Parts: sequence; structure tokens; C-alpha cells
Amino acid sequence: MSSVHELDANDPLRHFQEQFERPHGLIYLDGNSLGMLPKRARERVQHVVTQEWGQQLIRGWTDAGWIELPRRVGDKIGRLIGAPAASTVCADSTSINLFKVVSAALALRPDRRSILSTADNFPTDLYMAEGATQMLGKGHRLVHVDAHAIVNTLDADTAVVMLTHVNYKTGERYDMADISRAAHSAGALIIWDLAHSAGAFPLDIAACDVDFAVGCGYKYLNGGPGAPAFLYVAKRHQAQFEQPLSGWMGHAHPFAFAAQYAPAAGIDRYLCGTPPVISMSALDASLDLMLEADIGALRAKSVALTQLFIQSVEIRCAGFGLELATPRDARKRGSQVSFRHEHGYAIMQALIAAGVIGDFRAPDIIRFGFAPLYNTFADADTAATRLADILRSGAWQAYAKTARRTVT
Amino acid sequence: MSSVHELDANDPLRHFQEQFERPHGLIYLDGNSLGMLPKRARERVQHVVTQEWGQQLIRGWTDAGWIELPRRVGDKIGRLIGAPAASTVCADSTSINLFKVVSAALALRPDRRSILSTADNFPTDLYMAEGATQMLGKGHRLVHVDAHAIVNTLDADTAVVMLTHVNYKTGERYDMADISRAAHSAGALIIWDLAHSAGAFPLDIAACDVDFAVGCGYKYLNGGPGAPAFLYVAKRHQAQFEQPLSGWMGHAHPFAFAAQYAPAAGIDRYLCGTPPVISMSALDASLDLMLEADIGALRAKSVALTQLFIQSVEIRCAGFGLELATPRDARKRGSQVSFRHEHGYAIMQALIAAGVIGDFRAPDIIRFGFAPLYNTFADADTAATRLADILRSGAWQAYAKTARRTVT
Repeated sequence: MSSVHELDANDPLRHFQEQFERPHGLIYLDGNSLGMLPKRARERVQHVVTQEWGQQLIRGWTDAGWIELPRRVGDKIGRLIGAPAASTVCADSTSINLFKVVSAALALRPDRRSILSTADNFPTDLYMAEGATQMLGKGHRLVHVDAHAIVNTLDADTAVVMLTHVNYKTGERYDMADISRAAHSAGALIIWDLAHSAGAFPLDIAACDVDFAVGCGYKYLNGGPGAPAFLYVAKRHQAQFEQPLSGWMGHAHPFAFAAQYAPAAGIDRYLCGTPPVISMSALDASLDLMLEADIGALRAKSVALTQLFIQSVEIRCAGFGLELATPRDARKRGSQVSFRHEHGYAIMQALIAAGVIGDFRAPDIIRFGFAPLYNTFADADTAATRLADILRSGAWQAYAKTARRTVT
Repeated sequence: MSSVHELDANDPLRHFQEQFERPHGLIYLDGNSLGMLPKRARERVQHVVTQEWGQQLIRGWTDAGWIELPRRVGDKIGRLIGAPAASTVCADSTSINLFKVVSAALALRPDRRSILSTADNFPTDLYMAEGATQMLGKGHRLVHVDAHAIVNTLDADTAVVMLTHVNYKTGERYDMADISRAAHSAGALIIWDLAHSAGAFPLDIAACDVDFAVGCGYKYLNGGPGAPAFLYVAKRHQAQFEQPLSGWMGHAHPFAFAAQYAPAAGIDRYLCGTPPVISMSALDASLDLMLEADIGALRAKSVALTQLFIQSVEIRCAGFGLELATPRDARKRGSQVSFRHEHGYAIMQALIAAGVIGDFRAPDIIRFGFAPLYNTFADADTAATRLADILRSGAWQAYAKTARRTVT
């Protein structure tokens, strides 16, 4: 038995693998784009469609608890990110939720005009902040700096720092406690995008005194394609501002059908329209599975998987021009490994054709996400082996002139 | 054979009934809140979950066409509402979409400050307009008038008229051509909420020169609970404004991951975040079914069903205090019939207990939606009979003191 197989045999999370639909022969290292299908999500969706929608029909809102989904799913995500109950909701998309919290943060710092972020933040975050500031028309500036320069760039005009906790390209994880503390010391607020954090490793946003957070349901949370997103607002801020996307689900009494808006007292005011029940139910079921896992064990396996992959690639692919883009120090990375290569796009296409799915991010990053609930040490080892084969054989050259297509 | 059964036997749309999951023994007249489950939507969801998500995984974005869903589904809805291709997208919720188009309309009429709407417009529309104007902070006013007074209230300060085409309480349908023309004559723009229109009867928003429209996927379009919504922007306006919810799906090149927002040229700029693929796929399949129906036949049956129901109720329930709230003139109603009764809530609860599902809207409206693809003349007749039984027996009195719960 090889050591890789020993690692898998001794994996305390190994029984989670059979809880997922794992396509035969596929090595899937793209759970940081779209998580695999948990079998119970498939069963839940079938139940929601055939029984709840099909048989209960409109009564599903009360009898099947649809109306509670945004709060119930929100609280489950809250447990994964270290948020107290009634401070997280599931709603809309990450983009929409970012608009809500940016609007709130700017309103809470009315005398300040700058939003600090990074040029390599996930683009939609930057776009939504642009949209919000333009609509406000109060001269706010979106300032792009290097993540490592954030702390030293803070000044008396910084209203809010907006950062994605794990860089989607490099997989670098920033220090949530340090940066949050620095923002607060400068009198600014902090918004964390947890898209590549929630479900990937333990988080304690309450201990880090985070003001606002948003995140994605379809990556490490395995909620399915385009799963609804989430949003966290610290309790101290919840009643301080009426966010502008003031739809009826955020009303104090949505079913009174009053003509005037009156926001719900707590986190509910960050809800907007009617929730997409089928998609949100898939996420709900996936979260139940994830909450059965020991999050400490999950992180330990993530570190071991990424460490093994880095070592295997660096040994087997030495001399072929790959450069590690992810921090070598496990404490500074999420659950993803990225390498740079000038022919990264073609290499990834060849790798996908060889049954190893990762993805490519321009200009030169190949990314591999490791989801400890379903990825194995054998996955990591085989992926490194096939990558080496492709580099050694030059098989990637067949893809060097194909048009680039990359999605999410 | 009774005449009701003759009507059903001669119904040219009768073969559509078997395309829906129809719970045994239930008379469902609430398709204006949540449409019934089309069998092909159930099959499509199962395919999307098990095959596309489960097996294709991230490749589904291209190989299963997920990335095209907002446009593809939008164009299908466009065919139902009389919109040209590439002017309708499926996205987000009706609330969110209203925020986008209100923002656009106000920007296109920068010197005007009033939004005309009705106090009994669907509340979330009013709330979203409030949220947008407060965020803009330019002194816009949301003016509530009676729908019939809209035309005479228009003045040189009216930036936009925002109306729901069919009143959600009374079922009254307003004159789209007349009101749109009047708004334009006054130099204002028009936004129609088609929540209770799309899929209920033919529409020709292009012929009415409508500027903007939004609508709901889960009512007459049968898209499932919380199905994503839609949005229409006349081509002449599409490139005139960058709507503020400027997420990556609205970017000219979403997968270039550029740090600066650059809006797509056409209707795509009204997209925002990643679409909820599972929920949107259910709607896509339901639309395919609806597009197989002759929309003229659908309207004819809707008129006949509502006419029969009104007559049956008025004959059988005479003397029990029901007052027709829906226009008697079929040209002035959508596909719903409402009655007022001081004990409306209790009566509807008793009716639901008797297997007839309609709903209640405060303070005194009982509503019955008729979906011609699955409702029968026997449904209408039996519902009227059971309503008469409940009024005659006083069975509703058992519900007179229960707490009110109404949803969507």
C-alpha cells in the first residue's frame, strides 16, 4: 500500500466521500468554482419539487417552511463562519449582497469618502462598489491597493475596507484579525468576502469583530450552480441603517402588504425579494452534510492535501516552468493551490482532457481547489502525476492556439 | 353530461392538463400566487441536478448552456409579452429588477422628480422605489394616486409612471396602451409590472411602446417557488444608462476579470450576479410548455372560466354578502376573480379546508386565480358550489377567530 493510500485510509473524513456524487474516473479539483453534488441535496431537491411544489403548492410557504429558509440557511452558514444566530441570512447573489453592505458601511461612516480594496479582488465586488458609489453620487472613491499595503494605506478618509479573504487567483489567505483590527483602529469598517473561505476552513468572524461579510453558496458550501449567497451584519449595525434594496421580505410585516416600507428590526431587513426556494433548498441540504463534519479535521485535511499537492508537483514537474503562486506557509493559504505558467491556459485544457478538472485564471494562473469532504490524497497525487505527464510529453501544445473560455 | 363537462370536453387546451402534476382531489385556484408543477419542469430539474451538476460539474456552464440561461429564458418570456429578442432577461427577483429599471428611468429624466404609482400597487414595488430614491438623495417623490387618476395626475415633473398591469387584489387590468401613451405625451417614462399578466393573456409591450417592464416567474409562468424574475428594457434605452447593480454578469467581458466595470452593450448589462441555475432551469422548462399553447385560446378560456365563476358565485351565493371586486367587463380584468366579504379571511380558510385553494388579501378580499392551462370549468363550478355550501352552512365561523397567515 502506498503512502497516499495510507493517508486516505486513515482520513477521519473519508466516510464523507460516499455522500457525494463522484463521476467515475474524474479527478475534480474545482470545488472552489462549483462544489460537487451531495446526494442529500439531490434527494432534497427532488422532494421540494415533487412533494412541496407539486403537492403542497402555495401551502409550502408555511407548511414546508419555505418562508423561513433565508434565516434557517443563514444560521447554518453562520455556524460555519463563527457568527451568532440571527446575524446571517441566505439571499440573492454575492454581488447583490455586497451592494447592500457597501451601502450600509458608507452610510455608517458619512464623513469618509474612500473604499479600500485590491485590484485583484474578485471583479464583481469592485463593480458593485462602483455601482453603489456612482448611485450615491457623493464623491466616494474606490481605491485599489495591494492587499499587503491595506493596513498602511488606511487613513482618516477610509470609510470601509472591502477584501476577499482568500484571493481567488493565488489562494492567499489574508489575516482577518489583523486587518479588521487595523481598519477599526483607523475608524473604518470592514467587509469580508468569504466566497473562498466559508466551508473551506474554520472562521470566527465574531471574534475578529467583523462588521459585514458576504459569500457564495456554490463553492465550498456545495449549494449547486448559482446557489444563493449569504450576508452577515454584526448585530451592533443591524438596526442602524435601512439598506436600499428594501424589498418586501425585509419588511417588518411583509404580509401586512402595507404601502410604506418599515424595515424588520434585525438581520431580516437585509432580505429583499422572494427567495429561490428550489436552489436554496439544495444549499440547505448541503449545509446539513457539512455541519456533520469536524471543521478542525476539515482544515487539517485541507492543509495536508494542499501540502502534498505542492510537493508532488514541485518534485515531478521540476524544470518545466511552473511557479507556485500560493503561499508555502499553510497558515497563509485557503484550500486552493495555484501555479503560474506562461502556457497555463493550454496546460489546463490538456489536464481537463486527461480527466483532471481545475481551472485557469488570466493571465497565467492554473488553480486547483481542494474540498476535504470529497477530495482524496490519491486525487492530489494523481493530478500531480498527470500534470507532469502533460508537461513532459508536451501534450498541452495541442491546446495552445484554442480560444480561451473560462467560466466562474 | 352537464354543460360544465361539455365545456371541458370541448376545451382546445384540455390536453395541457395532463402536463401538470395535479394533486388528487384538490381544486387549485391560486396559480396567481404559485403556478402548478409542470411535469417537464420536474424532469428538467432532475436532469440539471443529477446529470449537469452531478456529472458535468463546472463544465455545465458551457456544455449545458448555463451561462446562456438568463438570455434564453428571457427571450422565451419576451415571446409571451410581445418583446423583441434581446430585450428581456431572466434574473434576480422582481424587487431587484424594479430597482434597476427605476434607477434607469430616473436617470433618463434627470430634470423630473416624481414617480407616479398607486397605493395599492404590489407593496414591494413601492418599497424598492422608495429605496432607490432615498439612495439617490435627489429629492424624488413617490406619489400614490388611484390608478384611474394616473392619466390626469401626470405633469411636467413626472419622471416615471410605475404600475402593476393587473391589480393583485382586485384583478383589474389597466389599459397598457392608453396609460403608456399618456405617460409619453407628458414626457414621462413607463414601467409596467407584469407579475399577474405574463403567461395569463397575450401582451404586446412593443406595440404599446413600453419603456421598461418587470415580472415574476412563479405565478402564471409556473416557474416554481421563488423562481427568478424577468426584466424588459426597450432597445432605445438599453445603452443609455449603466444600472447601479453592476455585477459581473452584466459586464461586457465577464470572464476577462477586469478590475473596472464596463457594461455589456445591450440588455445583458441588466444582469448582475451568477444566476440560480436550478431554479431558472425549472422556469425554462415551464416556459417551453406554455409556448406550445395558443395564447389567444388561452385568453379565451381565461375569460370563459372567470365569467363562469362569477356567474356561478353570484347565483349560488346570492344574499350572503359577497361583492364582486373584479371588473365585470372581461376586457378590464386579468385572469383572476376577487370578491369582498367582511369575513373573507375565515371564508377562505373554510374553503381551503374544503379542498379549494384560493387566497385572502387584507382587509376583505378573497382571490381566485384561473390558469387556463390546468384549470377546468369543473374547477370553477365546484369551487363556486363549495363556497355556497360554506356560506349557507356557516362553516366559516369556525375560522373567524384564528390568527391570520397569508403568504405571497
